Amino acid sequence: MTRKQLVEQIKKKQSFLCVGLDTDLNKIPKHLLELEDPIFEFNKSIIDATKDYCVAYKPNIAFYESRGEKGWESLRKTLEYIPKEIFTIADAKRGDIGNTSHLYARAFFENSDFDSVTVAPYMGEDSVTPFLEYDNKWVILLALTSNKGALDFQQQVLASGEKVFEKVLKVSSTWGTINNLMYVVGATRGEDIGEVRKLVPEHFFLVPGVGAQGGSLSDVVKYGMTSDCGLLVNSSRGIIYSGSDENFANCAKEEANKIQKEMAIHLKSHGIIA
Amino acid sequence: MTRKQLVEQIKKKQSFLCVGLDTDLNKIPKHLLELEDPIFEFNKSIIDATKDYCVAYKPNIAFYESRGEKGWESLRKTLEYIPKEIFTIADAKRGDIGNTSHLYARAFFENSDFDSVTVAPYMGEDSVTPFLEYDNKWVILLALTSNKGALDFQQQVLASGEKVFEKVLKVSSTWGTINNLMYVVGATRGEDIGEVRKLVPEHFFLVPGVGAQGGSLSDVVKYGMTSDCGLLVNSSRGIIYSGSDENFANCAKEEANKIQKEMAIHLKSHGIIA
Repeated sequence: MTRKQLVEQIKKKQSFLCVGLDTDLNKIPKHLLELEDPIFEFNKSIIDATKDYCVAYKPNIAFYESRGEKGWESLRKTLEYIPKEIFTIADAKRGDIGNTSHLYARAFFENSDFDSVTVAPYMGEDSVTPFLEYDNKWVILLALTSNKGALDFQQQVLASGEKVFEKVLKVSSTWGTINNLMYVVGATRGEDIGEVRKLVPEHFFLVPGVGAQGGSLSDVVKYGMTSDCGLLVNSSRGIIYSGSDENFANCAKEEANKIQKEMAIHLKSHGIIA
Repeated sequence: MTRKQLVEQIKKKQSFLCVGLDTDLNKIPKHLLELEDPIFEFNKSIIDATKDYCVAYKPNIAFYESRGEKGWESLRKTLEYIPKEIFTIADAKRGDIGNTSHLYARAFFENSDFDSVTVAPYMGEDSVTPFLEYDNKWVILLALTSNKGALDFQQQVLASGEKVFEKVLKVSSTWGTINNLMYVVGATRGEDIGEVRKLVPEHFFLVPGVGAQGGSLSDVVKYGMTSDCGLLVNSSRGIIYSGSDENFANCAKEEANKIQKEMAIHLKSHGIIA
């Protein structure tokens, strides 16, 4: 998917919501467990219920990988079920030496047809660029994450005065363009998003950490929104587990709709939609 | 597997060789392609041929993941086929926020029974410690890798004067012990291995980059060997693709045996074996 197509979807749906498909057998409604593929059945219902209110789905690959071959089958069926106009993110945090990253890119862009994959930057340029060689596919590179461990290395200050995550932003932004490279930017501190925005004024950010992880949507918008939105804000547990019985899909729908309405107000106040 | 058991195997086999199972359909002998699972058949022959000369096998997960569900099946069968006394490494470079890393740990330590998994440090402590909660299982954390991209971030100097990879070593060595935490340390510059060894005098190192990636075994030993070896040196392509026809397994055997003999000399000269 191109940036233009993504922005069109954002305007059309008045939403920059990404729904995280962190689908866990221990958390889905019990009545689904009798079905042959409960993970897929849950995702199918969630997608049906939320597809009008979001512009992206982000399966967290660990949830599928932890179930072995059966999990990968659930993931494949889920991806096939997502409407084509919705942006898809393989939240996989992959990254390895060049020839190996080429194979990870093949896994997510050829063997399956995700629009994007999250990548970890520690191994540097040749671990990231293989993912950038595909037309209309995206790398979403970890820059500043929303977990406590972000303090351990990302927030360390270099001799140059920059923090490690700032160095990652500056250097990596030369590897791709605003049309094939986004960044993961955590939302626990709105001011941090503002710092990142100064360094990469036009790149899209994937912002986790709104909702269960604790960030505020208003702060994300205040510090991170660009003239064409430039944001995908993720909610996983807050939407998909908002209900726990037969009515779970309706609960998810209401929750997604609530966030979408809030997003529409922000898009209007920034002049992105009329 | 415990450290004691691993060291016993090293002494018994007079080897600290790890064979990397980077098994690629485009590189294995053509006659195997007619079989139902050529990847597994290739690995099976390689394991039969090399198991007396190595103490570890390291499937590079990307090679399997890139083939979808079928690839995961080949990986599972390969892992089951590896003799139990041989250390197994899921070279996966995983790492995510705590609850997600828990699921990756489950994928490699419960759903499959690897002895260890390689983990990327960028997201910090809570992304790594979930892998350390299993008895007799290991994290092999990326410290200094052997690719060009290692210069981009790992080798950057912090305000404290340390390099980023040195900070990773110092901080992360408090998360685990020498009995459940190893480090990936690239072999392109022997002196670098010496620098790492000073910071973590007793941890095992997994050293890629000997052979195809360019490092020298003598340098690795000179700068990295401890009183109980403390090294697993990996060779992938140099062993498994040393032959390209029906005789491929014998070629791999000769290559592994050659390296093992060299390793035995080093183990003797360091007084680790008699």
